Amino acid sequence: MQKKALLRRRVQKEKVEGILITDLTNVRYLTGFTGSSGFAVLTDKHAIIVTDFRYQEQVRHEVKGWSIKIERTERSKEIKNICDMYNIKKLGFEDHDITYGFYRKLVKNRITLKPLRNIVESLRIVKSPEELSYIKASIKRAETAFRKLLPFIKEGATERKLALKLEELLKREGCLILPFEVIVASGFRSALPHARPTDKRIKKGDLVMFDWGGEFEGYFSDMTRTILIKGGNISQQKALYHNVLEAQKKAIESVRPGIEASGVDAAARDYIKKKGYDDFFGHGTGHGVGLAVHEKPVVSWRSKDSIDEDMIFTVEPGIYLPGFGGVRIEDMVIVRKSRAELLTSLPKKLKIIEV
Amino acid sequence: MQKKALLRRRVQKEKVEGILITDLTNVRYLTGFTGSSGFAVLTDKHAIIVTDFRYQEQVRHEVKGWSIKIERTERSKEIKNICDMYNIKKLGFEDHDITYGFYRKLVKNRITLKPLRNIVESLRIVKSPEELSYIKASIKRAETAFRKLLPFIKEGATERKLALKLEELLKREGCLILPFEVIVASGFRSALPHARPTDKRIKKGDLVMFDWGGEFEGYFSDMTRTILIKGGNISQQKALYHNVLEAQKKAIESVRPGIEASGVDAAARDYIKKKGYDDFFGHGTGHGVGLAVHEKPVVSWRSKDSIDEDMIFTVEPGIYLPGFGGVRIEDMVIVRKSRAELLTSLPKKLKIIEV
Repeated sequence: MQKKALLRRRVQKEKVEGILITDLTNVRYLTGFTGSSGFAVLTDKHAIIVTDFRYQEQVRHEVKGWSIKIERTERSKEIKNICDMYNIKKLGFEDHDITYGFYRKLVKNRITLKPLRNIVESLRIVKSPEELSYIKASIKRAETAFRKLLPFIKEGATERKLALKLEELLKREGCLILPFEVIVASGFRSALPHARPTDKRIKKGDLVMFDWGGEFEGYFSDMTRTILIKGGNISQQKALYHNVLEAQKKAIESVRPGIEASGVDAAARDYIKKKGYDDFFGHGTGHGVGLAVHEKPVVSWRSKDSIDEDMIFTVEPGIYLPGFGGVRIEDMVIVRKSRAELLTSLPKKLKIIEV
Repeated sequence: MQKKALLRRRVQKEKVEGILITDLTNVRYLTGFTGSSGFAVLTDKHAIIVTDFRYQEQVRHEVKGWSIKIERTERSKEIKNICDMYNIKKLGFEDHDITYGFYRKLVKNRITLKPLRNIVESLRIVKSPEELSYIKASIKRAETAFRKLLPFIKEGATERKLALKLEELLKREGCLILPFEVIVASGFRSALPHARPTDKRIKKGDLVMFDWGGEFEGYFSDMTRTILIKGGNISQQKALYHNVLEAQKKAIESVRPGIEASGVDAAARDYIKKKGYDDFFGHGTGHGVGLAVHEKPVVSWRSKDSIDEDMIFTVEPGIYLPGFGGVRIEDMVIVRKSRAELLTSLPKKLKIIEV
């Protein structure tokens, strides 16, 4: 109920009589519908969700407080019918989701349209207590799965086998889907910013990076741990780890309501720069997590987002030395009245695996 | 090389100096690039692929015969620069992929645009011998995984556990990703047209439907088998199965170059109608499979596609009786000179599991 009221307030400011929600994550957020096809229309007085016959039982089960319609004709015509029925003269739409081809179809059906941006996303950025509880459960599943993986991490194991094992463990914890394919990158491969698990075997002295996430009721989690395999001179690996850990600490300590997201990024980045590694931290410091694993706020030097209470995002600085290896440490935090509260509970003391 | 030449011939007909390819499956098809961000531009003389810094090593490794650029600025500006550099006065784009928001950005950058549809898709619909070999390997992985699952299918097992096990087995066969979440639906749930695995346990007399697919070098496979658990009077389940099997046989026998895809659908549908079940077969008879698990041709009563040699698609009629159960049997076929050749080799004789 509250979500509808909040959305209506925003829509009214846009001088349209209704908004068409086609982004399925936004549809799920607003209505609870989890099917893979459908859309919603919200007007000042009415709330309508439309899906196809495959989901007619499911939608009735999942959605309360929205009128349910089953698609009988081509989608653009269904939307035209709704505009006529509810007297929508101008219809707002999500311009990040509607394709140009579909936009043209709507225009051909003589619907007057207004592109809108970030309307639902600006609601999703702040999490309710219920959403927080789902995200906590999602984190717990991811952490439990990782703890169960630990005995398998040893010299000679391949990245691919470990990634597969972790995916199995996540599913066994109850995750219906995973936010992304598990990343396991070892040795020089841990320096690749977007490594996929390969048949490379873990060897002595390797930094091994794990980036994975869980799911609970559609809400994702996202975390990264980097561990070290004992062997040879590992002093440089250790030093790298402690620099990243310190940078992450600085970023987390900088979080408070009102700070710019770019300021949180700067807290980590400035520290890494001071240590001389500023050329080796090519990505942003974090991102919001919820029904999407990458959502607002964007925590990077380019971000225009501001941090506010009850936002949930990752803090994940990294240093990647080509040919040598990389370290990234990623936690999720929620913004409280004056500080960040850590949601991830896996320890961050460097784990060194004996061989 | 041949793909580029074929695409150029199509693009010339559209009276544009170049085409912007943003659909990542189409980018992969044309260039071999498997990254998750990037686009390509093809002109009469030039072929350019653009991605971001994360993929700079990967793109050089994967792509031959295209000039490689790394994105340095905002994407719409990169595209404008390419238009200026290669003298593209009018740029074709994929109107099923570009969002309205991005279209507006391109227009603001003073790029003259022409929406195009199905340009690359019309090449992808016919498979090369190399693509066929990948799809065969993808089918083999899916079949091997299913054979390994068989001993686990028994009274008392839950749908969810079986689905999870099959996903594990598929990954163990080497599938890097799966085309969709494995469907296991038993008893009355097998009548739901879009069932997700639940904690329902398999019991005597249940029809149990498995719908799953494999992957090899990005090429997917897709198959369905429905099996029966012995117990009580199972004559109606058996009759249902044999009707679907016969309908599938009719559809496969109808396939030849030149037939309308809607004709293949009709071959299955007419048989099911004759048996009195026409109200219980709500979906189309099949779809093309390749780099996407659902691609052209569409094999349904609404389809305007024609069947031609070397197309690969599924044939998957089904009958779903609400409250009782459903049967679907799905194979993949390739169109040869005068008939369909079956690619799926799993047996279709009704498998009855003893309890």
